[in-house]
Amino acid sequence: MRVYRVVQFGLGPIGQEIARLAATRRSYALVGAIDIDPAKVGKDVGEVIGLPEPLGIPVRSDAEAVLAETKPDCVLHTTGSSFRQVFPQLELIVRNQANIVSTCEELAFPAAQHPDLAAQLDALARQYGVTVLGTGVNPGFVMDTLPLVFSAVAQQVTAVRVERIQNASTRRQPLQAKIGSGKTVEEFQALVKAGTVRHVGLRESVALLAAGLGWQLDGYDETIEPVLADHRIQTAYFTVEPGQVCGVDQIGRGYVDGKERITLHLKMYLDADPAYDRILLEGPMPLELVIPGGLQGDRATTAIALNAVPRVVAHAPGLVTMVDLPIITAQS
Amino acid sequence: MRVYRVVQFGLGPIGQEIARLAATRRSYALVGAIDIDPAKVGKDVGEVIGLPEPLGIPVRSDAEAVLAETKPDCVLHTTGSSFRQVFPQLELIVRNQANIVSTCEELAFPAAQHPDLAAQLDALARQYGVTVLGTGVNPGFVMDTLPLVFSAVAQQVTAVRVERIQNASTRRQPLQAKIGSGKTVEEFQALVKAGTVRHVGLRESVALLAAGLGWQLDGYDETIEPVLADHRIQTAYFTVEPGQVCGVDQIGRGYVDGKERITLHLKMYLDADPAYDRILLEGPMPLELVIPGGLQGDRATTAIALNAVPRVVAHAPGLVTMVDLPIITAQS
Repeated sequence: MRVYRVVQFGLGPIGQEIARLAATRRSYALVGAIDIDPAKVGKDVGEVIGLPEPLGIPVRSDAEAVLAETKPDCVLHTTGSSFRQVFPQLELIVRNQANIVSTCEELAFPAAQHPDLAAQLDALARQYGVTVLGTGVNPGFVMDTLPLVFSAVAQQVTAVRVERIQNASTRRQPLQAKIGSGKTVEEFQALVKAGTVRHVGLRESVALLAAGLGWQLDGYDETIEPVLADHRIQTAYFTVEPGQVCGVDQIGRGYVDGKERITLHLKMYLDADPAYDRILLEGPMPLELVIPGGLQGDRATTAIALNAVPRVVAHAPGLVTMVDLPIITAQS
Repeated sequence: MRVYRVVQFGLGPIGQEIARLAATRRSYALVGAIDIDPAKVGKDVGEVIGLPEPLGIPVRSDAEAVLAETKPDCVLHTTGSSFRQVFPQLELIVRNQANIVSTCEELAFPAAQHPDLAAQLDALARQYGVTVLGTGVNPGFVMDTLPLVFSAVAQQVTAVRVERIQNASTRRQPLQAKIGSGKTVEEFQALVKAGTVRHVGLRESVALLAAGLGWQLDGYDETIEPVLADHRIQTAYFTVEPGQVCGVDQIGRGYVDGKERITLHLKMYLDADPAYDRILLEGPMPLELVIPGGLQGDRATTAIALNAVPRVVAHAPGLVTMVDLPIITAQS
């Protein structure tokens, strides 16, 4: 069995969980850890990610030196949602000849918003002989890859509708804060304007679906509304009174020939019940698929990022998306 | 948009539906039709498959001449479940340099029962520069590929359990007959012994799952039991009295390190309610996926066979399985 040498780049909540998984699964060896947080730099990564034993690997901020010294098969990159912002990091990794699996949301289909930058990264990846993939649960799986895989058994698909209803009460504090828990409607609208409550990735999922189905998108729009509490909600981190915001209701819509043929509906709010993911493929013979309870975001994202490593390492060089790779499966 | 030139090899119910789809979808051009049934040979294929207009393509039994004259991109092969029995046909197609998508159940993972024959076909396919895939809904999708795709978001999978409950009352007559409708238990057992009521493919799905998850199977067994009617059942083709057989209950089990880590449970019977497909990935964080109503077998098989063509044509030569290909999606 091959063991993949990986470096964790970014030790926020997702990065920490990926590093924990990588350190404990036999298919992977964690050989380096990169972060710029002064509270983490210099500490043993085992301590930072909550393992009982140190791993003998200090967290370092000098990314280039870590990559040059450890020469990993793949870097697990988890530092941000904006492709433009993380581009210099991706470029650095590629120039150090390491493959990349990143949870950067816009990297799930980077050509959707940044075609020039995507082409530049693709050329660089080919030049250095490495493969770059953006993935995660959403974007990367439940609203794009899974509906596409499901479409294989459809004789004809005329529209794709996905609903993802997530119960935020069971999630970590930053996520509960990010969805506007406890805010007034006015405060929520100000946060939407500032771009801080928005889930990033619906547009990328719509583009990935269209590409996978061979559809030519001629429009995209997105709405974000607050979900208001209809009862007093108490979580480990927030108390929300009736009428206050308890989450976000976001819809991305893709148009083909002027018709809304892709609808991705994400509701993430406190006390959501039932929570579920649901895929509907419309057509002469509609197909429905349900994940009762819904995929837990952090767990699913960390899993797919790590499970993607063997496919990314084996693939021909370049910037790829989930529709380019053979199916990704759980690794030992 | 590329149009794929396809030949339909085998005009039973599945082959007819694939040919109908191919003839009516713009991504495909049906350029030839092969069958040995004297009732079909010589007739226009459009008439045989129930189109309102003839297609100007006669059904022919001289397969080699059809392939040599039409030079298709891909042959859609639907003549039998036994890899050994259809091998000469596959060999003929490969030697005529056409790619193959086949619904032959054992071809979904031919190495499971016929490793030598599989190696021989793989070598031949490479020699002639073509790709050969076995697929369908089951085996090929709902009990193998879909659980594997779903496993991408699992941090750890310790067991795979799939249930497929199909309502046979809505299916065609030969299928209702095949599952033993109206037989006594003794007659059913005799049919099991003769091998005629058995669904072929559970073993291949178990092998595909194991291969995709990197598990080493050390055992496989299968049971087939009758489902007995608990009320009088009336379909378009059969009347079944209480106590008579109304379907089949078949379980395939795969063992790893002596433990039953794969369980595929197929129940296909008259008046099954509710019908559904259900995938459970066991592990520290179990994952469940449900297809309410269940995928209709014939529709799903014809869809995935035709939808697979672009991936098979584009793939490197050889004998492949569903875990080797990039994800298959609905084509226009």
